[in-house]
Amino acid sequence: MKKSIAIDMDGVIADIEPHLIEWYQKETGIITAKETIRGLNEHEAFSNKGAILKILNSPSFFRTVPVMDKAVETVKALMEEYEIFIVSAAMEFPLSLFEKKEWLSEHFPFISWKNIIFCGDKSIIDTDFMIDDYCKNLDFCKGKPLMFTAYHNVHLNHHQRIDHWNEVPELLKQLSSKHETAF
Amino acid sequence: MKKSIAIDMDGVIADIEPHLIEWYQKETGIITAKETIRGLNEHEAFSNKGAILKILNSPSFFRTVPVMDKAVETVKALMEEYEIFIVSAAMEFPLSLFEKKEWLSEHFPFISWKNIIFCGDKSIIDTDFMIDDYCKNLDFCKGKPLMFTAYHNVHLNHHQRIDHWNEVPELLKQLSSKHETAF
Repeated sequence: MKKSIAIDMDGVIADIEPHLIEWYQKETGIITAKETIRGLNEHEAFSNKGAILKILNSPSFFRTVPVMDKAVETVKALMEEYEIFIVSAAMEFPLSLFEKKEWLSEHFPFISWKNIIFCGDKSIIDTDFMIDDYCKNLDFCKGKPLMFTAYHNVHLNHHQRIDHWNEVPELLKQLSSKHETAF
Repeated sequence: MKKSIAIDMDGVIADIEPHLIEWYQKETGIITAKETIRGLNEHEAFSNKGAILKILNSPSFFRTVPVMDKAVETVKALMEEYEIFIVSAAMEFPLSLFEKKEWLSEHFPFISWKNIIFCGDKSIIDTDFMIDDYCKNLDFCKGKPLMFTAYHNVHLNHHQRIDHWNEVPELLKQLSSKHETAF
C-alpha cells in the first residue's frame, strides 16, 4: 500500500505570502518587505486586522494565488509512489471553498476530487506524512510532520523543515526508508 | 479526552431522500414512492442520470434539504460528551460546498467551522465513531462504523445499524462502555 501524504494549500502549494503582501498594499497602502516580516506571526506582519479580514473574504483572492515554485511537477511525480491528499483549512472562509476547488482544478487537474479535503481543525486527518506551514496543524498530526518554510515559522525548529519543493522527493525517500518499521 | 464522532450530512443529519424524490419529480415528472426504492442503489432508484446530475448541480438544492428528524437536538446534546465532526463528501459537487456550509450555519450554528470537514474519500478520517449511510465510507473507517438507515442500505447488515437519531445516545453509551479498553 502506498504511503499517504496530506499536503496543505496556502504557504505550501499556493504561494500566499507575496499575494497577501500585494493585496495588503492595495488595501492599506502599506508596503511590506518580505525580509521585515520573517519570524513574525500573521497579526504582527499584517497588523490591520480589518484589512486582512476584508482581503481574505474578497472574491478572487484565493482564486488568483500564484503556485509555489516547483509544486505542480513535484506533487505530480510524487503521486507515482504516494497517495496524495490536499488538506486545506478552508472552512474559516466559506467563500474560499469554491475558489480553492477551482484553483486546484486549474493548477492540479491530476488530483481527484476524492483526494481533496477542506477542513477546520486537521487533528482528525490520519496520513503517514503531513506537509504544512503551521505548527497548529503539525503539532497534532498523526503521521510524520514536515514544516514547509514560511515567514511566520522561520524561528521554529521542532519539526523537520522543507525550504523548497525540490527537497521533498529525496527527503520522503530517506524518511520512508528510515521509518520503514514505524509504519 | 472526549471520544470523537464523524457525522455525515446527506442521509444522516440532512434528510436528502424526500428532497431528491421531490426535485426528481419536478425535473422528470416521475413519481417515486419511498417503498419502491428500498434496497435499490442510487442509479436504480433514480435512473435518469442526466436529471440527477442536473439536480445535484442546481443552486439551492443542497441549501434547502430538510433536517433529519431529531438530528439537531441529539447532536447538540452529544456535544457535551463527544467531540463532534461533521464530515461530508461534498467535493464531488463543488457548487454544494458553500451551500452546505451555509446550511450547517443555519441548522447547526453550535458546530464550529473547526469541526467541519468537506472531503472526497473519507478513508483518512480518524475518529472513534463514524455515523454514515454509505458502506463505501464505513467499510474503511478507522473507528467504529455505525450505519444510518437509508433506502439504499436496508439490505446490508455488516455494520451496526441506526434507524433514528433517538437511538444514538444510548447506543454510543453502550459501545463506549463495551469498547472502553479498545479506545
